[in-house]
Amino acid sequence: MGTVDVPANRYWGAQTQRSLIHFDIGGDHMPKEVYRAYGYVKKAAAIVNHAAGRLPKWKTDAIIQAAEETISGQLDENYPLFVWQTGSGTQSNMNVNEVISNRAIQLLGGELGTQHPVGPNDDVNMGQSSNDTFPTAMHIAAITEIDSKLLPRVTELADELERKSIEWMDVVKIGRTHLEDAVPLTVGQEWSGWAAQIRACIGEIEHSRGGLLELAAGGTAVGTGLNAPEGFSQDIALTIAELTGKEFVTSPNKFMAQGSLDPMVRASAALRSLAVALMKIANDMRWLASGPRTGFAELLLPQNEPGSSIMPGKVNPTQCEAMVMISIQVLGNDTAIAFSGTQGNFELNAMRPVIINNFLHSARILGDGIEKFVKFSVSGTELNRKKIESYVGESLMLVTALSPVIGYQNAAHIAENALANDQTLKQAALASGHVTEEQFDSIVVPADLVGHGVEGA
Amino acid sequence: MGTVDVPANRYWGAQTQRSLIHFDIGGDHMPKEVYRAYGYVKKAAAIVNHAAGRLPKWKTDAIIQAAEETISGQLDENYPLFVWQTGSGTQSNMNVNEVISNRAIQLLGGELGTQHPVGPNDDVNMGQSSNDTFPTAMHIAAITEIDSKLLPRVTELADELERKSIEWMDVVKIGRTHLEDAVPLTVGQEWSGWAAQIRACIGEIEHSRGGLLELAAGGTAVGTGLNAPEGFSQDIALTIAELTGKEFVTSPNKFMAQGSLDPMVRASAALRSLAVALMKIANDMRWLASGPRTGFAELLLPQNEPGSSIMPGKVNPTQCEAMVMISIQVLGNDTAIAFSGTQGNFELNAMRPVIINNFLHSARILGDGIEKFVKFSVSGTELNRKKIESYVGESLMLVTALSPVIGYQNAAHIAENALANDQTLKQAALASGHVTEEQFDSIVVPADLVGHGVEGA
Amino acid sequence: MGTVDVPANRYWGAQTQRSLIHFDIGGDHMPKEVYRAYGYVKKAAAIVNHAAGRLPKWKTDAIIQAAEETISGQLDENYPLFVWQTGSGTQSNMNVNEVISNRAIQLLGGELGTQHPVGPNDDVNMGQSSNDTFPTAMHIAAITEIDSKLLPRVTELADELERKSIEWMDVVKIGRTHLEDAVPLTVGQEWSGWAAQIRACIGEIEHSRGGLLELAAGGTAVGTGLNAPEGFSQDIALTIAELTGKEFVTSPNKFMAQGSLDPMVRASAALRSLAVALMKIANDMRWLASGPRTGFAELLLPQNEPGSSIMPGKVNPTQCEAMVMISIQVLGNDTAIAFSGTQGNFELNAMRPVIINNFLHSARILGDGIEKFVKFSVSGTELNRKKIESYVGESLMLVTALSPVIGYQNAAHIAENALANDQTLKQAALASGHVTEEQFDSIVVPADLVGHGVEGA
Amino acid sequence: MGTVDVPANRYWGAQTQRSLIHFDIGGDHMPKEVYRAYGYVKKAAAIVNHAAGRLPKWKTDAIIQAAEETISGQLDENYPLFVWQTGSGTQSNMNVNEVISNRAIQLLGGELGTQHPVGPNDDVNMGQSSNDTFPTAMHIAAITEIDSKLLPRVTELADELERKSIEWMDVVKIGRTHLEDAVPLTVGQEWSGWAAQIRACIGEIEHSRGGLLELAAGGTAVGTGLNAPEGFSQDIALTIAELTGKEFVTSPNKFMAQGSLDPMVRASAALRSLAVALMKIANDMRWLASGPRTGFAELLLPQNEPGSSIMPGKVNPTQCEAMVMISIQVLGNDTAIAFSGTQGNFELNAMRPVIINNFLHSARILGDGIEKFVKFSVSGTELNRKKIESYVGESLMLVTALSPVIGYQNAAHIAENALANDQTLKQAALASGHVTEEQFDSIVVPADLVGHGVEGA
Repeated sequence: MGTVDVPANRYWGAQTQRSLIHFDIGGDHMPKEVYRAYGYVKKAAAIVNHAAGRLPKWKTDAIIQAAEETISGQLDENYPLFVWQTGSGTQSNMNVNEVISNRAIQLLGGELGTQHPVGPNDDVNMGQSSNDTFPTAMHIAAITEIDSKLLPRVTELADELERKSIEWMDVVKIGRTHLEDAVPLTVGQEWSGWAAQIRACIGEIEHSRGGLLELAAGGTAVGTGLNAPEGFSQDIALTIAELTGKEFVTSPNKFMAQGSLDPMVRASAALRSLAVALMKIANDMRWLASGPRTGFAELLLPQNEPGSSIMPGKVNPTQCEAMVMISIQVLGNDTAIAFSGTQGNFELNAMRPVIINNFLHSARILGDGIEKFVKFSVSGTELNRKKIESYVGESLMLVTALSPVIGYQNAAHIAENALANDQTLKQAALASGHVTEEQFDSIVVPADLVGHGVEGA
Repeated sequence: MGTVDVPANRYWGAQTQRSLIHFDIGGDHMPKEVYRAYGYVKKAAAIVNHAAGRLPKWKTDAIIQAAEETISGQLDENYPLFVWQTGSGTQSNMNVNEVISNRAIQLLGGELGTQHPVGPNDDVNMGQSSNDTFPTAMHIAAITEIDSKLLPRVTELADELERKSIEWMDVVKIGRTHLEDAVPLTVGQEWSGWAAQIRACIGEIEHSRGGLLELAAGGTAVGTGLNAPEGFSQDIALTIAELTGKEFVTSPNKFMAQGSLDPMVRASAALRSLAVALMKIANDMRWLASGPRTGFAELLLPQNEPGSSIMPGKVNPTQCEAMVMISIQVLGNDTAIAFSGTQGNFELNAMRPVIINNFLHSARILGDGIEKFVKFSVSGTELNRKKIESYVGESLMLVTALSPVIGYQNAAHIAENALANDQTLKQAALASGHVTEEQFDSIVVPADLVGHGVEGA
Repeated sequence: MGTVDVPANRYWGAQTQRSLIHFDIGGDHMPKEVYRAYGYVKKAAAIVNHAAGRLPKWKTDAIIQAAEETISGQLDENYPLFVWQTGSGTQSNMNVNEVISNRAIQLLGGELGTQHPVGPNDDVNMGQSSNDTFPTAMHIAAITEIDSKLLPRVTELADELERKSIEWMDVVKIGRTHLEDAVPLTVGQEWSGWAAQIRACIGEIEHSRGGLLELAAGGTAVGTGLNAPEGFSQDIALTIAELTGKEFVTSPNKFMAQGSLDPMVRASAALRSLAVALMKIANDMRWLASGPRTGFAELLLPQNEPGSSIMPGKVNPTQCEAMVMISIQVLGNDTAIAFSGTQGNFELNAMRPVIINNFLHSARILGDGIEKFVKFSVSGTELNRKKIESYVGESLMLVTALSPVIGYQNAAHIAENALANDQTLKQAALASGHVTEEQFDSIVVPADLVGHGVEGA
Repeated sequence: MGTVDVPANRYWGAQTQRSLIHFDIGGDHMPKEVYRAYGYVKKAAAIVNHAAGRLPKWKTDAIIQAAEETISGQLDENYPLFVWQTGSGTQSNMNVNEVISNRAIQLLGGELGTQHPVGPNDDVNMGQSSNDTFPTAMHIAAITEIDSKLLPRVTELADELERKSIEWMDVVKIGRTHLEDAVPLTVGQEWSGWAAQIRACIGEIEHSRGGLLELAAGGTAVGTGLNAPEGFSQDIALTIAELTGKEFVTSPNKFMAQGSLDPMVRASAALRSLAVALMKIANDMRWLASGPRTGFAELLLPQNEPGSSIMPGKVNPTQCEAMVMISIQVLGNDTAIAFSGTQGNFELNAMRPVIINNFLHSARILGDGIEKFVKFSVSGTELNRKKIESYVGESLMLVTALSPVIGYQNAAHIAENALANDQTLKQAALASGHVTEEQFDSIVVPADLVGHGVEGA
């Protein structure tokens, strides 16, 4: 394949350099989180290989130090490759092997690029293949992102929604179905629904972690574990679990773990589930805040910035809009992930880079987006109580409360007449002769029509 | 809204008829499963209303009989509405209310269409709204389809894959990664990966049932339970659980249960997960069966029909193709479901008909497709052992076994030379001088390179 | 492959019957439109084969008659196959070959099932393969659906929107951006935007017809035209053009025409473009009609049916909801089509049935849905002029008109103060001291702020 | 909204800074191409405003210089905002307004941040709104990316495919349908189909440019053109056309141009069409190159890098894999774009940033990916003529040529017997007694079975 020049001030070698040349596409770089996760894989492999007597202590120590520098991000600049590369992620694995090898060589006083005394394939990659370690790194990176950023922020959102829900549990407002006036509920009940949606999404994300906790390492090239010593699968999963503090285990079937990426597809579906809920909530919030004079105007969102370059004084629900766009992006990313999940062949799904890149992208924008959404919009949202109250009095759908007493058909005529004649509901009800004023006043009491709590009747 | 003529030989009433006129779109009918599920809702509601002293026994009995006739499918022809209708499913709920009301009237000797003595809104719909009962019926219909058809058939597929996996656990074959020759594994190991994929999908579908077991009934119009008596939510869920034998419970938050359809979105994701796995498996099978003379030709699929109208004697992997197309359809349906899931507003997600129709469609074609796939393709698949064996001998990637002994670089040169010079691996290995014949023969033994079992090293 | 029993009262033969047994999946039948289109293919082929001296007149005449009966729908019951079958559509082609063969045999006094004197493969399928004729039938079916139903109805919608736009061109209303109050425009301008969207979609659909007009017929098995006489491609395309009255031509590259289904993917994108526009329009309409008391309430949609089973007198924007759901379905279908389009291999894209079924489904529900939408919603929509007028007076964003005179910052302060102090814009403007009453009254004139026509400044 | 600190070494102002704080999400930055396009908008607006006598020459000149520095990329570091921001793109418009204003102030010797003598809203944004200029910049950026990078590279791919097609037009190979052996064609015919697919995609992209050439500028806030002088729409489009050398025109309907982003949705569909074709082609190439010993092995792809970290000597079709992943990403991006296209409301589609970011991403990875694909894979691909030739001799489907002579059924039996008895086609044909050796030898001549050219029979 000819020779290739490698920069003198970097630890990477020929294979990384070849990839840089052949795949300089679109400016999309393999996420750093993947390399940091890979650091754990290489460190754990060295520990296990050493324990099995296959790697001497002095090599092991050097590899471990280089791996730790990878984990910490110190060597980030040595991981320059692109997302669009070989579908197995081999080039990124070799990038890690080359960097750790060279850094270890340097630590041991050797000459960079000589592969001695620490070889990228023979030592750093010992007992491993890209085919088992890349999905292992994917799972570690995904779990790390979920645990360290996404879940805490989603939980914060659920907490904040619940706080508001409790605060406003007794504020009666008009309900809307089909966008049309309906019977009343309380603001707190409405927010409780949003909170419950988010709580359920947290449960779903936690469920999907289960699949991600199973690691492919130990399957090597095609799942059989060729060139890895017996027990390697169990040992490396255990070691990774110890190093990361996560409950990782070895996958019970390495042919599934390398031939498919189904756990990633399912984990993406869990992120999508969150996006679906967020879009509904962000949309509700911006519609309820629409106005200020010609919209629903029930909510007052924080005003973080001028809204318009031409319309002075305009303020827009920008955090909600960002959240809606993020949700849509997550659905787009999820489409790419599911599609990729179908495209495995035989012993390998060679769509790994596109999957992990989209997954981490989704998790990242959800996490960051939610953080901003909570901080700059949800937590500062206030009620326009005057407007909320006036709507309750205007809606004709409180006629529903009369239905059990006078029947659906009679009640319908009252509502229709009120609308046609521009009357209040009470005026039309009394005019109908089906109900006395006393009855009306005792039955059509908004605060009595909202039930108790959030579980319905 | 004027008058409307209703057919004399049908039980439906004016609201159904109006919908028939206004929504005669595309020939897509609301699935019968939804109506049968609705039969349970109406029966359960009547039982609960009667127990609460709100509905007399004679009315209750008539409603129950009509509901049972709906459940059994006897009244199927009375449920003619289309998928494309009001987004709440109200028209289908009214269709059920009208049919049960009229049938009950008939049973009680009354006159059809008079709403007496059993009214569609006041009696059959007592304590209910479309907004809480339609998602309840959706969940019942979805669970029923999953339990009665989909899961048994998917389980049968997993069983069959495992049977084959065990049968062929010792047949050594060549592995392929990136579509390229790789190191060997056994046919049974390969099939074990497919089986494990399907088993995981079963787990995912069962997980998603959890969300579907929670019922909205009792929330009525906006989730507050207006016009339903206290305890109605709990009672109707319990009654539906008893009638169906499924572990249904009332949803802990009715505003979520009516404002979103998140559990349906998650259940669709579980079906999608199955489709993703099926597509990989069906693709692998048809590629491995490609040929018979110029393809991989490792598998012999049953020949169920002539394959070509022009090429005599051609046989094609048609069951695999159908399965691939079904998988793609499920992904398309899932896209529609997830999108719809985002489009709720305030107290109602008014995208219900499109969601339940796509969900049941996916479950149905997966269930039926898998049944045929197992019966007409998987179970009759045989091995082309001669071809499988010859490939093992030809692949150069068995050089990998030499790598730990002579190093990665030396091994690589052997493989490259073999290919360049059209040699066998052994010829090239011996020519390299890095390995003796004795070494080669003791190391490069295909059956020794496939490890043990399915868990890797 | 053993024997198979075929119903005595049907014209189909063994291959159809085998498919019925092996692919009884999901109740999804290959659309009748495909068979009718196939009738044209078989008729045209017979004509061309006869002209080339390959088929005697008496056989030709019998085949033509049977093909015409297929075209007219008379033989619909003889085409029972499912969508989920072989990916080439061969089974449906053989269904057509068998039915036309048997019907021709019957017309000629022969015995059904004997393949004499008219054979399904040798005569009816002469010079053809499923691989070239199925995509030909797909294109014919697609064009027919587009021309006969979809385009006329979309045009009707555009016409109706334009009529309304002209009618209401001078009714000033408040504009809304980000859901928030903005500067005014006229109702007619708003509707003109919708009309322009639809007109552009018509153009796009017409553009996509171009690709569908190119026919694969004449490529036979793999695109080379084996077993078809020279000139067959041109002749059959010309004949189909004459028979259908559509400007069909032969595809300039048969390997593309059979190995890909790109023109179908592009045509689906054109339908999707329409769905995207329709969803925006239907959403705008239902939001503008929201209320009647607590929503935007600018539009009055026709009331076609009661909206709620529990809330008396409620009316919902059901036609808009159906249109939104249809739009989402079209996006889901399109996802399936595009995915399928990627999955061709070598000389055949074997995802044809799923593509044509989704395409015709999309076209059908768009066509029918638009027809109902126009008839039952758009054409009867009226304005709530009182509400529209009151909003114009209330919006603070008319301050924008002051901006060029007093500067953006000063104008912004006026709007902010008006909102904070619950003032009208005029009150706040005068209070600011930046503008006199005379100035204000001459500048802030809603009717003067809406520009002229639809092309902006 | 309080005060905010702005970096001293940057030209941006408070609104940019607020956005940086509130929307620091996911590391996704608004593409630089958008700002460069915006530079044209601001320059053109200044020219038009000056010509209309609304902006003095000295201000105009300063604005023009700052705009040119934006166009050239000199000011790139001053455009730091994120994709996830206000849905109108207002924050990016204000970023441009602030930077150009401050840079112009600097050029004029003023004090940064004072908005004097050149104001961001009053001068740089004169006659404009984000609502009309952001989609204008989107269209300019999209067209620029298409014209300068994407189309040249796609054209190069089509050219290269055609070169290979011509070179190998007479190399007979076996065809494959349903992955199964079929009748022969030539390598050149196969490649001609790929080339034709790409040519059609070029046509589609060019078609979609038409919609992008229409600019919204001049519609200002809601499409009416408020605060822009008469003729502004026409003048600014004309000026932008002159400055860019592209045939831009003003959109005939500004309410469509601002309320929808339909032309972007359609342009994304054109990119998707290309992705669909590329995926088919890249898949075909890697399958045909599979092996080297146990796959199809007809094509020899260039070997750019070692393929495996564990399997020495392995080479993989990495460029094809990257292209497949890119195609899938484009489909995912397109899903996000189409979804976003549906979510406009009233006078604004507030999903602009997510649309332009996905569109430019798609165009960029397609362009770059194709460049690498051509350079490092397609152009260096060679034929394994030995393998290709041997397959032609082995396939049983050449029996098809006998079909017109001996009938489909007889031909079918020959093929079946050959396969069952492991015979060559000739052996089985002669054994059948239906054909003499002379006949066989004169009919079953592969080179005679591939027809002429690419148009079929």
